[in-house]
Amino acid sequence: MKTIKGGVTSAKGFNVCGVSAGIKAKDKLDTALIVSDVSATAAIVTTTNAVKAAPVLWDDAVIGEDYNIKAVIINSGNANACTGAQGIDDVHAEVDAVSKAFSCDPHEVAVASTGVIGVPLPVGRIIDALPELIAGLSADDEAADQAAWAILTTDTVPKTAAVQVLIGGKTVTVGGMAKGSGMICPNMATMLSFVTTDCAITRDCLQTILSETVGDTYNMMSVDGDMSTNDTVLLLANGKAQNKEIVDKDSADYLTLKKAVYAVNEMLAKAIVRDGEGATKLIEVELTGAATKTEAKILAKGVVTSNLVKAAFFGEDANWGRVLSSLGSTGVAFDPQKVTLEFKSAGGSVTLYKKGQPFSFNEELAKKVLEQKEITVLVKMEEGNASAKSWGCDLTYDYVKINGEYRT
Amino acid sequence: MKTIKGGVTSAKGFNVCGVSAGIKAKDKLDTALIVSDVSATAAIVTTTNAVKAAPVLWDDAVIGEDYNIKAVIINSGNANACTGAQGIDDVHAEVDAVSKAFSCDPHEVAVASTGVIGVPLPVGRIIDALPELIAGLSADDEAADQAAWAILTTDTVPKTAAVQVLIGGKTVTVGGMAKGSGMICPNMATMLSFVTTDCAITRDCLQTILSETVGDTYNMMSVDGDMSTNDTVLLLANGKAQNKEIVDKDSADYLTLKKAVYAVNEMLAKAIVRDGEGATKLIEVELTGAATKTEAKILAKGVVTSNLVKAAFFGEDANWGRVLSSLGSTGVAFDPQKVTLEFKSAGGSVTLYKKGQPFSFNEELAKKVLEQKEITVLVKMEEGNASAKSWGCDLTYDYVKINGEYRT
Repeated sequence: MKTIKGGVTSAKGFNVCGVSAGIKAKDKLDTALIVSDVSATAAIVTTTNAVKAAPVLWDDAVIGEDYNIKAVIINSGNANACTGAQGIDDVHAEVDAVSKAFSCDPHEVAVASTGVIGVPLPVGRIIDALPELIAGLSADDEAADQAAWAILTTDTVPKTAAVQVLIGGKTVTVGGMAKGSGMICPNMATMLSFVTTDCAITRDCLQTILSETVGDTYNMMSVDGDMSTNDTVLLLANGKAQNKEIVDKDSADYLTLKKAVYAVNEMLAKAIVRDGEGATKLIEVELTGAATKTEAKILAKGVVTSNLVKAAFFGEDANWGRVLSSLGSTGVAFDPQKVTLEFKSAGGSVTLYKKGQPFSFNEELAKKVLEQKEITVLVKMEEGNASAKSWGCDLTYDYVKINGEYRT
Repeated sequence: MKTIKGGVTSAKGFNVCGVSAGIKAKDKLDTALIVSDVSATAAIVTTTNAVKAAPVLWDDAVIGEDYNIKAVIINSGNANACTGAQGIDDVHAEVDAVSKAFSCDPHEVAVASTGVIGVPLPVGRIIDALPELIAGLSADDEAADQAAWAILTTDTVPKTAAVQVLIGGKTVTVGGMAKGSGMICPNMATMLSFVTTDCAITRDCLQTILSETVGDTYNMMSVDGDMSTNDTVLLLANGKAQNKEIVDKDSADYLTLKKAVYAVNEMLAKAIVRDGEGATKLIEVELTGAATKTEAKILAKGVVTSNLVKAAFFGEDANWGRVLSSLGSTGVAFDPQKVTLEFKSAGGSVTLYKKGQPFSFNEELAKKVLEQKEITVLVKMEEGNASAKSWGCDLTYDYVKINGEYRT
């Protein structure tokens, strides 16, 4: 597997465009279109929040009914959530307009929105921007960059990733773009991710790959622990690489593609955490020796979702007690006498707690480890052989500032 | 039921003392002793954290074995947690010393600690302070106040509450003192609460009352969502009110005492939240119309544990979208079309969302409601008849400051 520079247009047959449709403040990029040369096999994972935005309900329905996806229309600045029946009507207006432009079935159009909730979507502006979006469709770096910017809210940088693998002698590319858990007042975090590949693969295989890799990547990161009304990860596969279609979940080809999709999702997830609101540090937890995979994930996630742990890393405090307590708080049973904790970074590595006993450590070395921007927390248990990774950011003054400000 | 001024010595037959044993910085009160004239029936609820401090293991064991409790020795400044076998030895040293002083069985002595973890307890200082603690034992206001101060860590005010009820013609008093979820570097929140009553009641009835009221009070509050290694709620009943012993959970007397214990626990829980680190506001959630009591509690707790909701209240932002999303995040299924949200306080009340639709509200009125120190969030569902209350505080710059600072 080779990591390449690129994103959502790196795979063959995908073109994008990003424009300003006037949903956000004047001249800000706020609307993007992704189009596949041929309707693509699609897989999707959306929010588990009981309150789902209208675009999420639409995408879940059409992809659940096995429609292929020709185009995805995305806007930032308005989430089209909690808008009642009007929200559904507005989604219909979007998919009708896009499907007419591409002479496809409306069910072959996916929709995503992020931004303010409870405010009707200015859908007319999106429809009015369609000619400009279509005219600008391209696979070049500039178009990909503009699309990556157009889906952002309070994010400070666009997030893209791409890799290539060989499948049956053909080069298969997987690339994507994402927006992070920036909060738009008066709202909550929304995570959107659009991943494209030119691999040929059945819908069933594609959905399993997406579901499993989302569980190990986006679902293992924490900026503030809230799941929004609009969270969506969409994966499109258009077959343009001309590999022999992947149909078997036990095949080597399947595993190769899965690794590539995992890699793109992990890179995007880490980029989201790194750009978390007010974040100054990326905290990676590597937990080994848990009894089961499920427990490993719950434990690893427990560390990065603890406010006390997050604030301690902001303060560059070698606070192993909070890490141990956050593990204990998860409800997973384990023997604290068989836990070892270590922090490591570009500054070095330091053991803080070893098999139930505080481990005497050099405070100066600990400071050096913790003043880095990316820190790994190693948690070693002796309950079994399962492991998991998770990612979180620190809790900072700026997080409170960004999220405490009156809606503006 | 009558709320009275008082605390842990309001019930007959309980004496306390608080002194400085030299565990915290010089001259700070850090050690307290509670003694009952006669060994008291005891009930306990401790942390669900998998990592339990030595005193928690001791108390769970002796009260689980039905020992009555004659005395409780409490220290702040050191949690005696994650200290390996030494921690257990230190607890034994404490209970041996106290039991000798009162000529009781060591198993009749309970122990509680809060403070720094991973550092051996300076148990000699506690034992050396015993003569002063015993000499100072008293039920007067000054002694109660000194004990209430001695158990604090980063709390800014002592927390006490007391009520009186009539049971079988006798005045029965329930009173208590608590410390809040103050963080001691390099540690986590610890909540300690000591409630005493002169009621005569069986251990089984007392434990059921405590378990149920803790579930509706302390367990429904959130300062930062972490459960510490040392959390303990201890309830002692010494029978000095000379009422006919309560033996039946369906009796009127039982329900009367339960209401009194609930009232004291709710007052102490609210005082803890109000004094949460850096907190400027108390947020009370009153949720009605949930399908089951369990779901009502999960939903109500979901609102007060959301960082986004907490930060919005700090910013005095009428952010109903975050409240709705925090409900949706809990994993409890409900119909958002049948939810109504209202904020109320001494400044008035304002409806923000009504049965699935944003409700047009007066921004000036909303500001007036939200600038108050105590705000109630009313969540009305139509899934059933179950209700629950929860309490939380806002997330502020000072929270990050207090918890991000290097261990000092």
